[in-house]
Amino acid sequence: MREAALKLHRENRGKIRVESKVSLKSTEDLSLAYSPGVAEPCKDIFDNRQKVYEYTVKGNMVAVVSDGSAVLGLGNIGPEGALPVMEGKAVLFKSFAGVDAFPICLNTQDPEEIIKTVKYLEPTFGGINLEDIAAPNCFIIEERLKQELSIPVFHDDQHGTAIVTAAGLLNALKIVGKKMEDISVVANGAGAAGIAIIKLLLFMGVKEVIMCDSKGAIYEGRPFGMNPIKEEIARITNQRKVEGTLADVLKGADVFIGVSVAGSLTLEMVRSMNDNPIIFAMANPVPEIMPDLAKEAGAAVVGTGRSDFPNQVNNVLAFPGIFRGALEVMATDINEEMKLAAVRAIADLIRDEELKPDYIIPSPFDPRVAPHVAAEVAKAAMDTGVARKEIDPEQIKGQMLSAVQIL
Amino acid sequence: MREAALKLHRENRGKIRVESKVSLKSTEDLSLAYSPGVAEPCKDIFDNRQKVYEYTVKGNMVAVVSDGSAVLGLGNIGPEGALPVMEGKAVLFKSFAGVDAFPICLNTQDPEEIIKTVKYLEPTFGGINLEDIAAPNCFIIEERLKQELSIPVFHDDQHGTAIVTAAGLLNALKIVGKKMEDISVVANGAGAAGIAIIKLLLFMGVKEVIMCDSKGAIYEGRPFGMNPIKEEIARITNQRKVEGTLADVLKGADVFIGVSVAGSLTLEMVRSMNDNPIIFAMANPVPEIMPDLAKEAGAAVVGTGRSDFPNQVNNVLAFPGIFRGALEVMATDINEEMKLAAVRAIADLIRDEELKPDYIIPSPFDPRVAPHVAAEVAKAAMDTGVARKEIDPEQIKGQMLSAVQIL
Repeated sequence: MREAALKLHRENRGKIRVESKVSLKSTEDLSLAYSPGVAEPCKDIFDNRQKVYEYTVKGNMVAVVSDGSAVLGLGNIGPEGALPVMEGKAVLFKSFAGVDAFPICLNTQDPEEIIKTVKYLEPTFGGINLEDIAAPNCFIIEERLKQELSIPVFHDDQHGTAIVTAAGLLNALKIVGKKMEDISVVANGAGAAGIAIIKLLLFMGVKEVIMCDSKGAIYEGRPFGMNPIKEEIARITNQRKVEGTLADVLKGADVFIGVSVAGSLTLEMVRSMNDNPIIFAMANPVPEIMPDLAKEAGAAVVGTGRSDFPNQVNNVLAFPGIFRGALEVMATDINEEMKLAAVRAIADLIRDEELKPDYIIPSPFDPRVAPHVAAEVAKAAMDTGVARKEIDPEQIKGQMLSAVQIL
Repeated sequence: MREAALKLHRENRGKIRVESKVSLKSTEDLSLAYSPGVAEPCKDIFDNRQKVYEYTVKGNMVAVVSDGSAVLGLGNIGPEGALPVMEGKAVLFKSFAGVDAFPICLNTQDPEEIIKTVKYLEPTFGGINLEDIAAPNCFIIEERLKQELSIPVFHDDQHGTAIVTAAGLLNALKIVGKKMEDISVVANGAGAAGIAIIKLLLFMGVKEVIMCDSKGAIYEGRPFGMNPIKEEIARITNQRKVEGTLADVLKGADVFIGVSVAGSLTLEMVRSMNDNPIIFAMANPVPEIMPDLAKEAGAAVVGTGRSDFPNQVNNVLAFPGIFRGALEVMATDINEEMKLAAVRAIADLIRDEELKPDYIIPSPFDPRVAPHVAAEVAKAAMDTGVARKEIDPEQIKGQMLSAVQIL
């Protein structure tokens, strides 16, 4: 694997290229695409700034922004080290949803400087995908940019994972015959993904949630290991202020969501859960519990982050279609309703009669995913008033399905 | 022209696209180009930062950076208005020299903020092309970035024009049988291009130069209309401290270089020059004097900025090959020797027996230009110690000639 991956990157000298969409074979070509003809769209945009969406790449261009502070499982390897990941993300945007994306690896890890820089970069881009930025900076940066930019901002490590997990949970609940509003959920790991998952599940109607970090259950007023983000989590979860270890609070729970560390969920802990427990063990590369073990302990449905097990929670199911949908309608935001639309679009691709414990999440290579997500997200944007352009969602879906570049 | 230009931009929704260089058809593809395989080049780059040139796009990627403050002849139209020009520039980079380039239109015109932002962007890019930034900020920004970045920085409005003008002058002097060190040059227009031309000509051995602005000749101690840039120009030119109007100082001069305004050079002024005067009348779209008129007044050679007259001073002859050459050897700078190498490469493409008053500058569509410029620039970078990689210049030329996308 190591040698093959290095070879792929070395031989191609990176994974993306910038191509011209226009031909330059003559003086006439040059005079339309460049001087003097290019002055015409320039003047029109100066007169009406929205025309930048009509005459430039902005309307289909996403910046994949990272400071390299929390890259994959590698940690703080800096902006150059992060570049192969951001290029890979750009490749996924293009391959899965036809979205142009460009890696922006920043030589600063100061959140205020990152915020300012992204604001300066706004004119070229139609959307901002934040990536691999460590907590708590990722929360600060995303929140401020969402307020201060007029283009959508999406921290994929948070919301991508949350959306796909929620889609999997929707389908898993159908299998075990439980309802969102009746279940109790325990999440382990209070990083970016864990917090986003919890918030999305609350938005979707889950009433009972307890979040654990390495020190056990988080509750309001916990006298140790708190920070502003955990304070906020404590306020919106664990209403009964349950204290204790992960093992303590997991007793009787319906759902375990792990975005923590390898092996942190034991056979005994699964056995202590309610009947037909649902397990998302998404630590990478080694999950909190191996799927076979979880099933042996009684788990009804198990999802992981890995492609070699069933039910892979893979962000690529979400972000390409979400941005494509948002861009198609010139959305100013990716709001909760749009995220929920993506959740449902992903979940609904598996028909009830197809659903089974090993098939609650579509394959990343299912070519229907991005078109369906894009159409539903665009619709939700229009329904919630964040779209600056109206377009028939079926048209988006049709175009994408006919242009699909993957299998 | 207007409708055709708008149509071209509208139908393509901009002029560039980002493409994947790798195929994503299977889980294996995905695991090499993205998680988990991508971690391998990331780790190697973290261990040795120079490997970013080996495994990513950095080594062939130029940022085309503008704040939209001085766009074409349109003035300060802002970053969105400037985007079609910067995309066009990216198209030229790719079409003429196979260089990937990406438009970065910044939502600030504060030079300190621009400097800081470009420094933050450095990890992704192998070179920075500054474009359409108003004087004097363009000088400040370029100088600081050249000092503070480890990748080459080039303000094309200054040096691109200077290099092509100097190449034309080299050949024009052969026609009239004069030598660089003997001529007297008068330049009209003390903007970015004019100042860069003067500095390059001084570096090339011209001894007598007078620069004029709208208030006449610039000389040391002039009590009106000065600024720090003009003070510097006054120190390095006009040693005899000649005062007067453009018409006054042009008497007896060998060369007129206009980067000023339409019609500022009259028939009488040309007639007052030395025998066989050389005229570069580069105001756009209407030159300082029309070529026919200049010839009627005795001009031996005339160049303009226009494609519909002979001897077009077109930056596209310079910047694509210059950056390609600099990138090929991982240069840390584009220094004066590299600029001079580009001048000679462009001039030398016209053999002595081909030279004539209407053919002193090659056509922008001459497919030999960028490969020759790239090879000579790379050689000059290696000779002057700013290259971080050795490569045979003939190899660069050969590769480019065989890959030429134009004609």
